[in-house]
Amino acid sequence: MKSIITLSHGAGGKDTNELIEEIFFDAFKNEYLTADDAAILPSFTGKLAFTTDGFIVSPWKFPGGNIGKLSVCGSVNDLAAMGAKPLYLSCAFVIEEGFPTAALKKIANSMKETAAEVGVKIVVGDTKVAGRGQIDGVFITTSGIGAVLSNANLSGKYAKAGDVVIITGDIGRHGATILLARDSFGIDAKIESDCAPLWEIAKNVLEVSAEIHTIRDATRGGVGTVLYEIAKSSNVGISLYREKIPVQNEIKGLTGMLGLEPLYLASEGRFVIIVDKNDAEKVLQTVKKSPYGENAAVIGEVTDEHKTKVTIKTEIGAETFLPAPGGELLPRIC
Amino acid sequence: MKSIITLSHGAGGKDTNELIEEIFFDAFKNEYLTADDAAILPSFTGKLAFTTDGFIVSPWKFPGGNIGKLSVCGSVNDLAAMGAKPLYLSCAFVIEEGFPTAALKKIANSMKETAAEVGVKIVVGDTKVAGRGQIDGVFITTSGIGAVLSNANLSGKYAKAGDVVIITGDIGRHGATILLARDSFGIDAKIESDCAPLWEIAKNVLEVSAEIHTIRDATRGGVGTVLYEIAKSSNVGISLYREKIPVQNEIKGLTGMLGLEPLYLASEGRFVIIVDKNDAEKVLQTVKKSPYGENAAVIGEVTDEHKTKVTIKTEIGAETFLPAPGGELLPRIC
Repeated sequence: MKSIITLSHGAGGKDTNELIEEIFFDAFKNEYLTADDAAILPSFTGKLAFTTDGFIVSPWKFPGGNIGKLSVCGSVNDLAAMGAKPLYLSCAFVIEEGFPTAALKKIANSMKETAAEVGVKIVVGDTKVAGRGQIDGVFITTSGIGAVLSNANLSGKYAKAGDVVIITGDIGRHGATILLARDSFGIDAKIESDCAPLWEIAKNVLEVSAEIHTIRDATRGGVGTVLYEIAKSSNVGISLYREKIPVQNEIKGLTGMLGLEPLYLASEGRFVIIVDKNDAEKVLQTVKKSPYGENAAVIGEVTDEHKTKVTIKTEIGAETFLPAPGGELLPRIC
Repeated sequence: MKSIITLSHGAGGKDTNELIEEIFFDAFKNEYLTADDAAILPSFTGKLAFTTDGFIVSPWKFPGGNIGKLSVCGSVNDLAAMGAKPLYLSCAFVIEEGFPTAALKKIANSMKETAAEVGVKIVVGDTKVAGRGQIDGVFITTSGIGAVLSNANLSGKYAKAGDVVIITGDIGRHGATILLARDSFGIDAKIESDCAPLWEIAKNVLEVSAEIHTIRDATRGGVGTVLYEIAKSSNVGISLYREKIPVQNEIKGLTGMLGLEPLYLASEGRFVIIVDKNDAEKVLQTVKKSPYGENAAVIGEVTDEHKTKVTIKTEIGAETFLPAPGGELLPRIC
């Protein structure tokens, strides 16, 4: 194959077929992967979950992952957050003319590895090539189909006063990683993205508790934005304890220096779980035993005070509103 | 709302919510449309079809449609081509900072109208905003889920010698439209994209014939590329009759002047249908009575000569190979 992607790779002819066969089919091969217009998948019982997510992160690779891993984790976690076992993914690539073929292979291989870890199959794709300057590098949109567990009934609308807020690990690593990948600020910090597939966590907690009300991944906008959305959707208040929020020392240092709130830095491998307080300890221990869950913590509670708002209690007892999310995200991370 | 899209519309906060609610939710509203991470859809029996397609056409609007209509037709037609009733769509937008909000509303409304025509529901979406220059205008990726008709068994691999090749209308209009939308070449031709949803055609022909082997939409690369792919996948030859291929006079004029082959200009509202010759007339008449099918024609036959190749017979009886597709598409059209 040519060493860079050219416009002819997007023209639907010989070069397109070569690209699809040598890179994508080679990486993704499975019994349902198709070169026809749509993949044909066996019937299954129960409700379907259906999700989509576009990824435009720049640079395309970063410590702890790349846009390929990110794109699979994103759709897998969106399905898992609704209590759905991820079954099938689609992926649509838009590639800039001149993008290195070797980089595209790395991206496809990361997608393959992450999909294999979860047991999800990439069954259909699309490849477009944009002219130089028409896009920046490579964009990937993944969509996913999952089978909703019969015991799952989750929504951002179902948080109740008296529930407990659990985070499945330390926060803000993905956002901080991308920030440093763009500009090191003269800092030599060991920060890696937390980007990870979280289906195991969702499955395990739904097995031990029938009282989980909401699961959300704390991606764009971070934990703070997700909690504000839940507070609004469920018409409740959410009260956080500052000292309970797990933040790596390196992230604390970076955010302190730059004046950023870690609650608004993206995590790409963390769930916020809202659960009835009676099941909270059981769920917390289950998360801690699951892959990517070892640093889980209870970070707050759902209340009927300050409805639609998120408040935060400092170490010395003062309670303030967490500033509402809004305005430009720094940096764009997915 | 602000009159242009800003980076804050992609940050996951207040402006993002406003954008989603005022433009996308307002246009797409239905009982399954969700602001959660994934849409939850009722179970259905039978096989699923799953497809994805990215759209990066520039300019975003053109005579006969815009990128929104195109993106819905693309996924609807990919499902229909596999004999699947389109049920649900997802849409992922990547929007350039500075893109006019009013244009985005027009795009969303076209998507709504086209989806309503087919009876497909847009149930989940994603919105990212890229910096000025990071992308050109707006990109849309749609994915679709369909229910495969129990009597459909279609693939590019199933064409057989003795089958007949039907095209459901005159060819090349979408490619020619985009070509002229970029550069008028001093031509004042009345050319409109053929962009259209084709589910009705697929449903109707599958009702009248159990001997339809392949349906493909003649999008990127046009009829010529699609036929070369089928010839290769099915290991057959395909022989076309030049004078039977329906081409609008305006398209004939334009392609003649520019030295382009209409068989390689994209159609976005045309199926190639490969059917046993005994059912060909019945299928042709059914297409002609369906929406968007009035100019349908038998344009060739499947043979066991010249396997993997497409040949074309001229008006005066000479037979030549259709040059194989490959190289750069002119213009990029989807």
